[in-house]
Amino acid sequence: MTYTAPITEMRFALDAIADLPGIARLPGYEEATADMVDAILEEAGKLGGEVLAPLNHSGDHEGSVFENGVVRTPKGFREAYGLFVEGGWNALPFDPDYGGQGLPWTLASAVQEIWQAANLSFGLCPLLTAGAVELLQEHGSDDQKETYLPKMISGEWTGTMNLTEPQAGSDVGAVKTRAERNGDHYLITGQKIYITFGEHDFTDNIIHMVLARLPDAPAGTKGISLFLVPKFLVNEDGSRGPRNDLRCVSIEHKLGIKASPTAVMAYGDSGGAIGYLVGEENKGMACMFTMMNNARLAVGIQGVAVAERAYQQARAYAFDRTQSRALTGNGGEGDAKSVAIIRHPDVRRMLATMKAKTEAARAMTYWTAAALDRSKRETDEESRKAQQALLDLLIPVTKSWCTDIGCEVGSLGIQVHGGMGFIEETGAAQHYRDARILPIYEGTNGIQALDLFTRKLLRDEGAAMTQLMLEMRAGLPAADAGDALAALRQPLAEALEALDRATAWMLEQGGQNLANGAASATPYQSLFGLVLGGWLLAKAAQQEDGGEDGFVAAKAKTARFYADNLLGEASALAESVTAGAGSTLSFAEEDF
Amino acid sequence: MTYTAPITEMRFALDAIADLPGIARLPGYEEATADMVDAILEEAGKLGGEVLAPLNHSGDHEGSVFENGVVRTPKGFREAYGLFVEGGWNALPFDPDYGGQGLPWTLASAVQEIWQAANLSFGLCPLLTAGAVELLQEHGSDDQKETYLPKMISGEWTGTMNLTEPQAGSDVGAVKTRAERNGDHYLITGQKIYITFGEHDFTDNIIHMVLARLPDAPAGTKGISLFLVPKFLVNEDGSRGPRNDLRCVSIEHKLGIKASPTAVMAYGDSGGAIGYLVGEENKGMACMFTMMNNARLAVGIQGVAVAERAYQQARAYAFDRTQSRALTGNGGEGDAKSVAIIRHPDVRRMLATMKAKTEAARAMTYWTAAALDRSKRETDEESRKAQQALLDLLIPVTKSWCTDIGCEVGSLGIQVHGGMGFIEETGAAQHYRDARILPIYEGTNGIQALDLFTRKLLRDEGAAMTQLMLEMRAGLPAADAGDALAALRQPLAEALEALDRATAWMLEQGGQNLANGAASATPYQSLFGLVLGGWLLAKAAQQEDGGEDGFVAAKAKTARFYADNLLGEASALAESVTAGAGSTLSFAEEDF
Repeated sequence: MTYTAPITEMRFALDAIADLPGIARLPGYEEATADMVDAILEEAGKLGGEVLAPLNHSGDHEGSVFENGVVRTPKGFREAYGLFVEGGWNALPFDPDYGGQGLPWTLASAVQEIWQAANLSFGLCPLLTAGAVELLQEHGSDDQKETYLPKMISGEWTGTMNLTEPQAGSDVGAVKTRAERNGDHYLITGQKIYITFGEHDFTDNIIHMVLARLPDAPAGTKGISLFLVPKFLVNEDGSRGPRNDLRCVSIEHKLGIKASPTAVMAYGDSGGAIGYLVGEENKGMACMFTMMNNARLAVGIQGVAVAERAYQQARAYAFDRTQSRALTGNGGEGDAKSVAIIRHPDVRRMLATMKAKTEAARAMTYWTAAALDRSKRETDEESRKAQQALLDLLIPVTKSWCTDIGCEVGSLGIQVHGGMGFIEETGAAQHYRDARILPIYEGTNGIQALDLFTRKLLRDEGAAMTQLMLEMRAGLPAADAGDALAALRQPLAEALEALDRATAWMLEQGGQNLANGAASATPYQSLFGLVLGGWLLAKAAQQEDGGEDGFVAAKAKTARFYADNLLGEASALAESVTAGAGSTLSFAEEDF
Repeated sequence: MTYTAPITEMRFALDAIADLPGIARLPGYEEATADMVDAILEEAGKLGGEVLAPLNHSGDHEGSVFENGVVRTPKGFREAYGLFVEGGWNALPFDPDYGGQGLPWTLASAVQEIWQAANLSFGLCPLLTAGAVELLQEHGSDDQKETYLPKMISGEWTGTMNLTEPQAGSDVGAVKTRAERNGDHYLITGQKIYITFGEHDFTDNIIHMVLARLPDAPAGTKGISLFLVPKFLVNEDGSRGPRNDLRCVSIEHKLGIKASPTAVMAYGDSGGAIGYLVGEENKGMACMFTMMNNARLAVGIQGVAVAERAYQQARAYAFDRTQSRALTGNGGEGDAKSVAIIRHPDVRRMLATMKAKTEAARAMTYWTAAALDRSKRETDEESRKAQQALLDLLIPVTKSWCTDIGCEVGSLGIQVHGGMGFIEETGAAQHYRDARILPIYEGTNGIQALDLFTRKLLRDEGAAMTQLMLEMRAGLPAADAGDALAALRQPLAEALEALDRATAWMLEQGGQNLANGAASATPYQSLFGLVLGGWLLAKAAQQEDGGEDGFVAAKAKTARFYADNLLGEASALAESVTAGAGSTLSFAEEDF
């Protein structure tokens, strides 16, 4: 149950897929030199592998506990968080004016993968803090920034996102929590659920970002405002002041990520929690959108991370566990003996599937992170806009596809273990349980699919998608690229055709009737992810072999495996998109 | 979290798919009249829905507990087992000479589905007893039958299967447990793991069926013998005698089926447990094969059962939970209001997927059970042989495909619930956890795939498969069958073509090199299940509408949904079978 950060893999994907060297040439990112990147990955790998990873299983077993209004995180978590803050890790991608290191999101994504793979429950705390920091960086007043950002960026205080209420899940516009104007601040009253690290024992203050509604606000999402609501108020001199009127009511008993406390929060039991408006009244949803891309990318990275962790564990088991003779007859003198199960083709197929999917998902997250960096730092407006359009298009695909892969690879990890996989002590089952939240939170994958369909495809009439298709077509291996690469060309070209057909259908039939598009949005999104993943693996396989012997040759094998074994599903998904909506909508409620 | 046995669905599948009326005309099965079948399903539905189902969630929460050598099952389980035995349910399909009711396995399969859906952990106890009963019915001496069968058939005593040891999982031939001849019995010494209901508090005796090896036995599976080892010895007069030298060492902490105790068993700590040889020395594996078909079918039924349970729960939630406005604009005056989420196309797609897969899997299990009955009771030898060949071919497909579906539908059930699905109190997560054992035990699905490839396909050179393909082709809806049915013809014909291509490849390329076939066996098996499932749904859709209004029309919608949304994967799987083996085998160990 150890975890070793796959630094060679990460470094390769950062350079070959995300072009981190190119990003380091953009203004403000000059510090991300090759040496710096190496040093950061290596140090993060140590903290992840030596401190966080060993707490993953014990944290799951122990869980966070709620007693007398207080949350106690599992043994070792508080100390680990202290080391995390001490190392300056929380500050990596944030504004240097407030203590951040201003490094590229692309690099931060790779580092993020390490925390999440080492300990998904632990990793959620900085992940949520990052969302709150971003909101403040973009929308906070100077005063708010000065008061809160330095301590949140250092990690001395953590941040949370308070969106969901019992009646307001996917439909954020249904939020009922009230905010009343009261001099220079507001009084917040209401209940929030599913608040990740809403209460904990890591730090002595927690800064809650809370969506609430003013008494005279318009209905729906147009009447939502964003408030900063600290657990403890902050005195003029920056020291910690009195306790605010908010409390943790309980924490949930969950399928996974059990070390991470998921709180029910009550605001204003005694008259109203003091909250400070962030941005303008009734513009809270617009603020949320600015951090949504990052947060959704981060959850996609969690998918990669849990897949990597499950893969490492299954691989170790497959090399260690002996069972049955080899079928191949290649066993030489050992023929009559049991062999390591990696020698059995069916186990090898499972491991290869895990490996190919994990690498494709990693490539997708880093590539998306690169678009995020470029959308902020390209030197001309047009390039920034183009990268922003690409980023917006990729986000739902990356979030959904990589989280689905986290679940699939987690499940395969159990299967490689056989009966041992079902025993909790083995640890394989934890990845399967932990991963299952990923397709749900930060917008369910169904919500991602609707976002992809309506906001990313219909709104610009397919313009960003057309651009991406051009880039993907241009990036196919050439027919004369040598056998290993040329063999990828035909299956990828067919898969791109399938994606093209499905895109045309979504724009035409979905555009004419939203219900059609909504019925096909999920298979469309899966198709998009599948094809993009295969294309990224082919991109990796086309790199010049610069590093270790055989490293890029293995990338060609992985791309080929993906093309032969997985990519064929593209035509099936395209069929489901174009032919399937009608039969989905044909069901009447009484047919169920 | 309630469960209502879907008796209309079950009855329809029994008649339309499995031809239960035809089976009831076979000698010995005459008692399975329509009235009897109705009465049995209704009464089983009551016991399942009212007694077993309410214990499912509490049983999971409480789990079975091991203390001081004793296993305590969760509250209510012991009493429920008492009612189960009292109702005579354990005896349904067994030999009337020993107190069984001699009813068809097809009917018993439907009843089995009810127990497993109501409470998978509980249902495992009679499932394992059934395996032990079958072994004794087929291979026990008259004396053994007289001593043990009546009480095991009634359920007064339960039975277990002891195969696995730490070094002997999929490779049963590696069993090390020793058996020494000692007069009229043997002395058994060794440790067994993963023994389902190996120890419990339901009954005052447990009859263990134990695989062990004689000192002079040949290596591997040819040296395995089967022993009956009772927890308490039985006196001449049938009363309970002294405790045998065996004990439960511990029970496992598992991902799911937590109410079901999974025991580590130690035999012979004090010199040797008394065991009685069943069948002949060194012929234990042959004995096991006689019960394997039934046991694997039963696990496939567990897949259907957990899928049905998850579907019922997700359906109830989707009709109850309101969130967001309808996209369709068909909401009339309610347009601006939140609607039940069943109205959202993406939720409808998920529920339709759950429904279609569950119904296809149910059809497959009942159809397989029918082959089991016919293989025993057809009046001419040739028919029995043909049915046996069909049964042998179907078993790995039914076991693996239906258990994969249990997991997939369990996962979709969580997704329909959104965030609520991740909270254990909701109960949706239990199905996801419980289902995960099904692709592992009773032969992993990878082992099933190898069985399908080597024993069921290669051994008869595809003869049984050719027969089945003929039957499937002949059973396609006619081109002039009316729009709803005719639309199924083309996608099914294409899927059959894909299965045909893949079968030819498995026979040729797999026959030439076992490693090829082993690398492609799992996608081949999945393809087989996918196509057969679609064909069975089309068979259902072609029935005359005799029952409730619209019932068969809904079957046509389900078959169409499956054909449009799911069946397209057939060509992708065929591609994986035929093109994928090479890339799987291209990975060297150092590539992982």
